[in-house]
Amino acid sequence: MRTQYCGDLSSQHIGQEVVLCGWVQRRRDHGGVIFIDLRDREGLVQVVFDPDRPEVFKRAEQVRSEYVLKITGRVRARPAGTANPDLATGEIEVLGADLEILNTAETPPIHLDSHAADASEELRLRYRYLDLRRPEMQARLRTRSRVTQVMRRFLDAHGFLDIETPILTKSTPEGARDYLVPSRTHPGEFFALPQSPQLFKQLLMMSGFDRYYQIARCFRDEDLRADRQPEFTQLDLEVSFMDEDELMGLMEALIRELFRAVIGVELPDPFPRLTYAEAMRRFGSDRPDLRIPLELIDVADLMAGVEFQVFAGPAADPEGRVVALRLPKGGALSRKEIDGYTQFVGIYGAKGLAYIKVNEWTTKGREGLQSPILKFLPDATVAGIMSRTGAVDGDLIFFGADKARVVNESMGALRVKLGQELGLLDGEWRPLWVVDFPLFERDPVNGRWVALHHPFTAPKEEHLGLLESDPGACLSRAYDMVLNGTELGGGSIRIHRDAVQRQVFKLLNISDEQAEERFGFLLKALRFGCPPHGGLAFGLDRLVMLMTGASSIRDVMAFPKTQTAACLLTDAPSTVDEAQLKELSLRLRTRA
Amino acid sequence: MRTQYCGDLSSQHIGQEVVLCGWVQRRRDHGGVIFIDLRDREGLVQVVFDPDRPEVFKRAEQVRSEYVLKITGRVRARPAGTANPDLATGEIEVLGADLEILNTAETPPIHLDSHAADASEELRLRYRYLDLRRPEMQARLRTRSRVTQVMRRFLDAHGFLDIETPILTKSTPEGARDYLVPSRTHPGEFFALPQSPQLFKQLLMMSGFDRYYQIARCFRDEDLRADRQPEFTQLDLEVSFMDEDELMGLMEALIRELFRAVIGVELPDPFPRLTYAEAMRRFGSDRPDLRIPLELIDVADLMAGVEFQVFAGPAADPEGRVVALRLPKGGALSRKEIDGYTQFVGIYGAKGLAYIKVNEWTTKGREGLQSPILKFLPDATVAGIMSRTGAVDGDLIFFGADKARVVNESMGALRVKLGQELGLLDGEWRPLWVVDFPLFERDPVNGRWVALHHPFTAPKEEHLGLLESDPGACLSRAYDMVLNGTELGGGSIRIHRDAVQRQVFKLLNISDEQAEERFGFLLKALRFGCPPHGGLAFGLDRLVMLMTGASSIRDVMAFPKTQTAACLLTDAPSTVDEAQLKELSLRLRTRA
Repeated sequence: MRTQYCGDLSSQHIGQEVVLCGWVQRRRDHGGVIFIDLRDREGLVQVVFDPDRPEVFKRAEQVRSEYVLKITGRVRARPAGTANPDLATGEIEVLGADLEILNTAETPPIHLDSHAADASEELRLRYRYLDLRRPEMQARLRTRSRVTQVMRRFLDAHGFLDIETPILTKSTPEGARDYLVPSRTHPGEFFALPQSPQLFKQLLMMSGFDRYYQIARCFRDEDLRADRQPEFTQLDLEVSFMDEDELMGLMEALIRELFRAVIGVELPDPFPRLTYAEAMRRFGSDRPDLRIPLELIDVADLMAGVEFQVFAGPAADPEGRVVALRLPKGGALSRKEIDGYTQFVGIYGAKGLAYIKVNEWTTKGREGLQSPILKFLPDATVAGIMSRTGAVDGDLIFFGADKARVVNESMGALRVKLGQELGLLDGEWRPLWVVDFPLFERDPVNGRWVALHHPFTAPKEEHLGLLESDPGACLSRAYDMVLNGTELGGGSIRIHRDAVQRQVFKLLNISDEQAEERFGFLLKALRFGCPPHGGLAFGLDRLVMLMTGASSIRDVMAFPKTQTAACLLTDAPSTVDEAQLKELSLRLRTRA
Repeated sequence: MRTQYCGDLSSQHIGQEVVLCGWVQRRRDHGGVIFIDLRDREGLVQVVFDPDRPEVFKRAEQVRSEYVLKITGRVRARPAGTANPDLATGEIEVLGADLEILNTAETPPIHLDSHAADASEELRLRYRYLDLRRPEMQARLRTRSRVTQVMRRFLDAHGFLDIETPILTKSTPEGARDYLVPSRTHPGEFFALPQSPQLFKQLLMMSGFDRYYQIARCFRDEDLRADRQPEFTQLDLEVSFMDEDELMGLMEALIRELFRAVIGVELPDPFPRLTYAEAMRRFGSDRPDLRIPLELIDVADLMAGVEFQVFAGPAADPEGRVVALRLPKGGALSRKEIDGYTQFVGIYGAKGLAYIKVNEWTTKGREGLQSPILKFLPDATVAGIMSRTGAVDGDLIFFGADKARVVNESMGALRVKLGQELGLLDGEWRPLWVVDFPLFERDPVNGRWVALHHPFTAPKEEHLGLLESDPGACLSRAYDMVLNGTELGGGSIRIHRDAVQRQVFKLLNISDEQAEERFGFLLKALRFGCPPHGGLAFGLDRLVMLMTGASSIRDVMAFPKTQTAACLLTDAPSTVDEAQLKELSLRLRTRA
């Protein structure tokens, strides 16, 4: 119907007759002339209607916001002095010769101008088709489409096959709650929607496909804290006969290509690698935001002797940790701000937030420090802290002392909060790999071993013996890719030997019977010539969110759900007929 | 780990040292030497182990079928006279220098040689990871991957955006049974898995995306007659501001590109188009297999006067039809064969299958015909039939006479069966479009109007008035693409005006209240500036099945389900804990 997109017109089209289709962004009547800003997915263009064609002019007068028009006209340069530099098509306009109203529109409940983002999210989700007309949302979903396009081309070029795995399947081992689907043909039985294609992709390696990928929908029926969605998308892949170094190299190359092709950003080559131990030590987190130039510094040795039990206790506890966090120029923080941070670390279980303000250390020494805890610290400890942290006048030093888990979580989070609130972010894109994860960690409640990743993650070959003697010391062949404090993706080399898989299940307190019931088909497949294999999954929603600078994954999905897992647009979920339930052999449970 | 794939080796690698990884297809010990056929996804290569490296030779002796090996060796030409022309790598072999057993294998329950396809489908599905190792299955899934790759590239190049729509959603209007997903956060409510993204893709057009596509998973809880699967995949697309001619042209170009790029076949340009009326008239079907050179020929006018009520009745009935189907050289059919076809048309409700054998018409006239019904037919009728069908000596003419629906279904099916069984298929690929469908048809049971496609299909503009005066005569803007008797895809220009949509709902006996409840969001969206739009969906599984020559869609899916919608590999569906049901506010209904 059209000859060009509105947004594609430029001065090179001057003199051409064009046919445009789109929506009315706005109409202005000025000096006896009608101006219509016509919008399509490529942008806006100004169309002018003169009164010398009365019939067309009359139609143009009826036009309201969001009417759908087909306009025929001739492109011309805007009169001198009226070019609009804010608009890509601002040098030209279209002199309208004909106008057809393809559809009318009621007054939209969301204004589609620059204030649209101010509309409540409830309104934006309910009228999603209007919200999505905004150029910002259009751009995000176009970027998403471009991201998967570049991913696919890279993987196609590297011999990966795109293979679909089932959505109606069996419970998978990620451990979150499954969405269930009742079976009509097998009364009383249920499918589960996959939390990931994990087991199927391993089966595809056992099937000899060598290199698999899929941009796969995954499902988790979680309580939607933070920025989660019931269904999400991951780039899921798996390869055979490749070790972790080669695979990580390939995945880095993919992400570099993606950033280069889609947003013109050059990421480092290679990505730095941190061991899990080092990441926890320096940043209190296994997904450190490397843009923030702050680090945790261990000072337990300096605190071991002090009389102040808040420090001395954790310093002497093998499971304890005592750290300092130097905040350059932090001396300017007010008491109220420090109280705020104290409250913040409390969320993570920290009982307090000790600090030292370094006012005039250079000239006055200890007298130049200001801190409620100073009185508990002998001179040598103070000197040691100052020297180890490298603090200078004007700085502030925070302290964390508790079980290592609490210190890492609270001080790691504080580090990020300080970095963000005080504008310390250095550079824009700081990817890294975290490697050498422990295979197991202890459940803090019952003390049992649980898998840090999932039970199919392979232990390092040289640590196989530790499975027997010291499982906690056994490191895995897992790797996580982290970007700016967000885990972009993670994976591992998998267990490909039946005996090792059984040993790991045993350590995880999964009985032979349970293993057989849940993963029997996988255990069986391991016995028929399973190749060494491994893989990775990237969270697509989060990746696109980072790349587009959106603040929520909801803003990079066309039709997201609310925090209570409902769709405001279609009003799903909804009730069903009794007859449908009967066919599924189900009854609603009446609430007590 | 490897330097090459086994199947990629050729005489150009002679002299090179290679590292190969793969599975043992078979091991033969012959003349003191061990031959191992090593297989990976690219093919097979023969590896030879001489006893002069005793340690390696010893390991080679342990090797059994489906063991996973890493082999280092040097490529050499096979000794003169031992080349294997049946094997792509048959001119060379690898002299093994080292061998590592990466994994062992129990004796597989499916033999992975040429007889594998003979294994029961039950066994093939249960050990799918073994079945998928067969080169035939590998090739099919690779073709599938290639098909989607070519589709995506074509659509990317034509400005389509790949946009994901929800899987957890509301019941859609296709009318088959939905799979339901109970919501935990909204007790007593359910999501439905989509039968297609129909409503969401229309909403995307209302959102201004202009050109959308998705390779989308769809779900139907149908009784699995024939070759259906509970979940299937379609290439789903929708465009704005494009009429049916332009869209059909683009879709043809896509399919031509696909056949050219993937299987090297040139399809006609343009595809022929048949109206629904002509397709029904000539072939008794709206998805005619044009490879079969047989047509139904209307003879009601010739039969109107005869005394034989079997013909005269339908000939006089406005809803009746009387046709002849000439089978060239059909005179050779035995009585038993004809009885078989009579039984066959009975499946479709035909009460019998009259025929005339044309033995010696040329020389003997009426005396040269042989038929139980001849006595009922006056000379003029016989002459008319002979002349209109163009029958010659040696032919056979079948007749169908009944309600048009029964004649079309039975004689259309007979045409296909004759074509297939008698080897009449002409040419390999005969695509076409069927257009000008009626918008409505009458439900044969209650006589109500039902949508031939779905209730969002637009009537032809020039037929809008017929909605009021004669709905049965109103043609739609729908189009189906048919290839060799299979519907590859179908779609339509949609209704973009609120008033027309309401009028159609009314004709379909959907009350305002029902419309509001089921499609309220769509009706509302129509009022806020909905552009003219239309689209299409191709069944990917069936398309790949045709392109690979597979006989079932199960053979082009990695992990299909059985006819009772179960996965034999993972044993899904399965029972769940009472606690899970409780969380979902559900109880199992005990069977009476």
